Amino acid sequence: MPRFALTIEYDGGPFVGWQRQANGVSVQQRLEEAVLALEGERRVVHGAGRTDAGVHALGQVAHVDLTRDWREDRLRDALNAHLRPDPIAVLAARRVGETFEARFSAIRRHYRYVIDNRRAPLTLRLGRAWHVKRPLDAGAMHAAAQALVGRHDFTTFRAAECQASSPLRTLERLDVRRDGDLIEIVTCARSFLHNQVRSMAGSLEHVGSGKWRADDLRAALEAKTRARCGQVAPPHGLYLVTVDY
Amino acid sequence: MPRFALTIEYDGGPFVGWQRQANGVSVQQRLEEAVLALEGERRVVHGAGRTDAGVHALGQVAHVDLTRDWREDRLRDALNAHLRPDPIAVLAARRVGETFEARFSAIRRHYRYVIDNRRAPLTLRLGRAWHVKRPLDAGAMHAAAQALVGRHDFTTFRAAECQASSPLRTLERLDVRRDGDLIEIVTCARSFLHNQVRSMAGSLEHVGSGKWRADDLRAALEAKTRARCGQVAPPHGLYLVTVDY
Repeated sequence: MPRFALTIEYDGGPFVGWQRQANGVSVQQRLEEAVLALEGERRVVHGAGRTDAGVHALGQVAHVDLTRDWREDRLRDALNAHLRPDPIAVLAARRVGETFEARFSAIRRHYRYVIDNRRAPLTLRLGRAWHVKRPLDAGAMHAAAQALVGRHDFTTFRAAECQASSPLRTLERLDVRRDGDLIEIVTCARSFLHNQVRSMAGSLEHVGSGKWRADDLRAALEAKTRARCGQVAPPHGLYLVTVDY
Repeated sequence: MPRFALTIEYDGGPFVGWQRQANGVSVQQRLEEAVLALEGERRVVHGAGRTDAGVHALGQVAHVDLTRDWREDRLRDALNAHLRPDPIAVLAARRVGETFEARFSAIRRHYRYVIDNRRAPLTLRLGRAWHVKRPLDAGAMHAAAQALVGRHDFTTFRAAECQASSPLRTLERLDVRRDGDLIEIVTCARSFLHNQVRSMAGSLEHVGSGKWRADDLRAALEAKTRARCGQVAPPHGLYLVTVDY
């Protein structure tokens, strides 16, 4: 059976997350329904990253085995036709070998966390960024963030329900930069723990507001206990940007 | 009475436009209701640009005369509290002299028109850009656009219902640039005719798709007749960016 890799963009707002769940509509479910409508067969669509409810994707990657050997652009258009009117778009479909696994073949995941740091309410960016009214020092956030780069036990920044066998992860990059009212936190790693990016973003917000010093962030990491996580930033500021293979 | 200039951002989607109208809720109406709630008096809020239904603003400017001599940041926050939950935000309030007129004191208006040029449906940019599926040549659009820069009779690019006394306008800039799938048309002038930016954007799309050559755009301008306008681009791609004084 021909295997295809799909590059997928979605607005996470209306969904319970990437993964199929009993309590609502997931992105995976809608993609599997589109595949069923196309091919008349139930197929599992395997994603590279299981984004949580409300988290957006600019370049999620998934693989699926199909019966027909579709032309890549025809498959993309046909899936999109069946995904309408939900805010999920297949940006590209690519024929891949049978050893390609969206999740296990991935060598790096890139995430972006967006904070809109201003007094006034959000209008055009509502649901697309975390609205933080108190002024944040992005320079202090960036400097403190460097303590998290490298190989560490990220137990502090990991959801209680995280199912990974080890809390060790290697953070390749954690940059914080300001452009006007927007603060972007850019990070990449081979893989992340459950809620890791939102937990790091929430704790960095404490550094930016002056509630925490850089040493407090470092001490939180070293404490290796969930109780020391500053806060978990809301999902609607987080974007799965791209996945490297 | 103290006069204040307000800098205002809004998502144009839910509104019938800037100006008060009988057929629905306008941005001006919501601002005047917020002023009434604050001061207990009906005041007209005068805008610099009367954006059409669906058109967005990042920096609309308006002036209003109030009874109390508000502290600028308190006025901004109080207006925003009364505008909730509509997607209208007062970014700044500034005390100005009694000769300041948002519309007549303006020396330049800046607009941006955004096209998302890709096959796949829009998700996160839905309602924030014009979705054009056929590939557009942004370089050809930019080159052709230069024929519209300068002082011209813009009758071709003017709505039939435009109330300006003259169709002559001086376009200072009309740049088209691509960044990935996004094409941005950036323009400024002392003032624009009704529907002028959307009419120019719609005609430039014809150039980008190859339906028109650069000469066709120039001939359309010189024909000075509305019948020669290529098409009017949809409102949700248009942003009033800022107003200079």
